[in-house]
Amino acid sequence: MKQLTQSRVAIVGLGLMGGSLGGALRGKCREVVGVARRAESIEKALAGAMIDRGTLDLEEGVREADVVVLATPVRVVLCQLEKIGPLVPPQCLVIDLGSTKREVVARMAEMPEGVQPLGGHPMCGKEVAGIEAAEDTLYEGCTFVLTPLPRTSEEALALGRALAGAVGGQPLILDAERHDRLVAAVSHLPYLLACALTGAAAAAAEADPAVWQVAASGYRDTSRLAASDVTMMLDILLTNKEAVLETVSSCQAQLGDLVNLLQAGDEEGLRTALSSIRQGRAGGGSSGQ
Amino acid sequence: MKQLTQSRVAIVGLGLMGGSLGGALRGKCREVVGVARRAESIEKALAGAMIDRGTLDLEEGVREADVVVLATPVRVVLCQLEKIGPLVPPQCLVIDLGSTKREVVARMAEMPEGVQPLGGHPMCGKEVAGIEAAEDTLYEGCTFVLTPLPRTSEEALALGRALAGAVGGQPLILDAERHDRLVAAVSHLPYLLACALTGAAAAAAEADPAVWQVAASGYRDTSRLAASDVTMMLDILLTNKEAVLETVSSCQAQLGDLVNLLQAGDEEGLRTALSSIRQGRAGGGSSGQ
Repeated sequence: MKQLTQSRVAIVGLGLMGGSLGGALRGKCREVVGVARRAESIEKALAGAMIDRGTLDLEEGVREADVVVLATPVRVVLCQLEKIGPLVPPQCLVIDLGSTKREVVARMAEMPEGVQPLGGHPMCGKEVAGIEAAEDTLYEGCTFVLTPLPRTSEEALALGRALAGAVGGQPLILDAERHDRLVAAVSHLPYLLACALTGAAAAAAEADPAVWQVAASGYRDTSRLAASDVTMMLDILLTNKEAVLETVSSCQAQLGDLVNLLQAGDEEGLRTALSSIRQGRAGGGSSGQ
Repeated sequence: MKQLTQSRVAIVGLGLMGGSLGGALRGKCREVVGVARRAESIEKALAGAMIDRGTLDLEEGVREADVVVLATPVRVVLCQLEKIGPLVPPQCLVIDLGSTKREVVARMAEMPEGVQPLGGHPMCGKEVAGIEAAEDTLYEGCTFVLTPLPRTSEEALALGRALAGAVGGQPLILDAERHDRLVAAVSHLPYLLACALTGAAAAAAEADPAVWQVAASGYRDTSRLAASDVTMMLDILLTNKEAVLETVSSCQAQLGDLVNLLQAGDEEGLRTALSSIRQGRAGGGSSGQ
């Protein structure tokens, strides 16, 4: 298996994630080939120096690739894995950037022998989709989860690590099921809470539009994720349903406890609960602020 | 009643809000007098050029003031209103910066005749408390809610507007009850959601500490408010209980609807709901991003 510097990398899907990856990878591998459905995306990727060349033809894009990166929503990844299986050369590393990993890895397990599949999930992004929002620095400093299969060779995993590192990510090897449980709590749950908040605020604004005049940075930050791309989020929720429902239920219980304390006017109980939550946040997950 | 430029302004409470207000007001009024419980706060306010002089004695601080600004948590404001009523000179404007207004305005109504009370709530802040976090620009561009009482004179309201404008705020006149209902939806609800999220993530991290390794900007933004000062938030929740419980209940219903659609695997229903929420956010409350 080739080193990254000698590899031809095909990126399938030139949106925020694919475009940014191409921009960060160019010059660190032999060639970056962009594959998209629309000529416009390829033009933009070329204009933004994110790819060396582009094609609208999936087969043409992947058949001489040493690495194929699927940078599309999860359920598109699932379809593309089936399609490209017979098209890629032997020992080709096939990695995806999808936000859930269990179903992706299950589909990867069915790929033709000789293909080297590896699940991937860089923990970065924006709530704005599309190549217009792409930037070379998007992956810098992010945790880049890799979920190898039993069939993934040492060399393929090393190449995956090299790719993650080349764009500025910190590789983290996880089991796919564990990954999905973890991100349900810190990624999919926040999205649903942001949506519920936005829905509640919109309902309040129907009764009194002055709501938006008093909405400040606290509301904006807490509701920001509700602006995420719906198609991407649907794929995530539907391919991680059990873990998402479980973590939402845990969160509903937390909220219910706080509500009960408030309802009862139990000031000391509420103070203890809120202080303990506040300290818990300081303990983890607030880094990078 | 004097103009702002001729007024001596006493700021009671030199934390984030009081310190920042002083810094922004200095030079735009006759004098800024800081009143605090600890000598250390006064030293810091003087060192940061946020006040012209300071005192630990509430009576000394307010007895010659043309404007008294109470920059303390809501329930401290309630006590201070009683205390300063007999101390301030006739026609003194007494304004607070508390985050809920109904109970404050009710207490203001009981102040001695001649005092000019006015509820105030600048829609700005940070999740970090204390004078160390104060900055002169904190109020710039914020909506500065003013809740006059029937007894508040035109001149007193005009002086309140001038003060709000002098620090960079946009005055917005609201009825106290309406204010409390509005901020419950876009300020107190986001806080409780951030707390519930943080609690759920901490519970997940107890089972698997790798949670914090995959927590990215989405989690950090959505959970940020959970780091707010607990004493301040307790005062807010306990003085706005009914409106908070009502908006939390509306939000729980929104979340429940999304969960039901996901549980049922109703993809089209979920897409419609999430898209409509996303558009609702674009329609309002996302400005300033």
